[in-house]
Amino acid sequence: MKVLLASRNAKKLAELRRILAPEVPGAEVLGLDDVERYDEVPESGATFADNALLKAREGFAHSGLLTVADDSGLTVAALNGMPGVLSARWSGRHGDDDANLRLVLAQLSDTPDDRLGAAFVCAAALVGADGEIVVEASMRGRLVREPRGHNGFGYDPIFVADGFELTNGELDPAKKDAISHRGKAMRALARHLAENEGAL
Amino acid sequence: MKVLLASRNAKKLAELRRILAPEVPGAEVLGLDDVERYDEVPESGATFADNALLKAREGFAHSGLLTVADDSGLTVAALNGMPGVLSARWSGRHGDDDANLRLVLAQLSDTPDDRLGAAFVCAAALVGADGEIVVEASMRGRLVREPRGHNGFGYDPIFVADGFELTNGELDPAKKDAISHRGKAMRALARHLAENEGAL
Repeated sequence: MKVLLASRNAKKLAELRRILAPEVPGAEVLGLDDVERYDEVPESGATFADNALLKAREGFAHSGLLTVADDSGLTVAALNGMPGVLSARWSGRHGDDDANLRLVLAQLSDTPDDRLGAAFVCAAALVGADGEIVVEASMRGRLVREPRGHNGFGYDPIFVADGFELTNGELDPAKKDAISHRGKAMRALARHLAENEGAL
Repeated sequence: MKVLLASRNAKKLAELRRILAPEVPGAEVLGLDDVERYDEVPESGATFADNALLKAREGFAHSGLLTVADDSGLTVAALNGMPGVLSARWSGRHGDDDANLRLVLAQLSDTPDDRLGAAFVCAAALVGADGEIVVEASMRGRLVREPRGHNGFGYDPIFVADGFELTNGELDPAKKDAISHRGKAMRALARHLAENEGAL
């Protein structure tokens, strides 16, 4: 079975492969760079699920392959749930993780510590010839005022999950996957995939 | 009657004086620079009303004068109501109007035109020896993708009020005051002040 992961983000692809591989043995997991290039539409959806479905439908339409896409982000209570779907471009510079997390910290500089609650959310979509499914999962925690650690990507260095002291950027990747929004959502998709192989 | 406007923002002070003067004839309107200097606490409230009250209470506590303060901001639907209370420091640089509005435009660059709805909100608080009152008012409209006009301040150049084609930055100041969030809230406070002179 071939599965397309509709992403060009190398760090996200590595994380998704790492999560999917043990769940769907024998699946060949391709990235967007492994299929014929197409123009991706902007992620203009109002929700994570909208964007994940948009990307998975687009990947399937162009490649004909069973396609998985995720849209993930950080929701900060004191920012009314933003950066949300704009997490990757919060600073206006798409994919500039450092600028994005620095901006969030600057915006919250006068916000008291007890209002730094946040959550990571992931919507993971699977689209194939026979239908589509989208799963949403979250990881709750709080922000810290200084980035710590170099694992992961995005806002990982400023996020501490409930029950932990280390930031996601300091956590061992396998430990992060076990509790992360993306781990939970992707494992649910993978189980669906394994149970419905070829018959999504 | 002396009234203290608890603000150091010259453009906001000019606007508040312009609105209040005709409503409370004979009142002497002072700014923070006209009273003994005190250290202002950060605007850490979660709502406009929290921050307006915080600033008005602080002004009254330090000056003994009847004190008016406002907290205002832009709420953008596609940003879940943010920048909100963080409007003046959205870019992380407090009071940098251009950086703040450029950041909002960059964040919304992939958001479709029909999701650019926004509103200005003002909470205006009055605190004196005999009590306190806070009024909240809004002005609904939508954002435009390029700043236009040099009147006003803050996000005025990218905001078009419902029923108008000109941005707030292009509107004649008197016309803006007639419909603005700040105009509506401050006139309500001024009427209260005029009716309860000396007996707030």
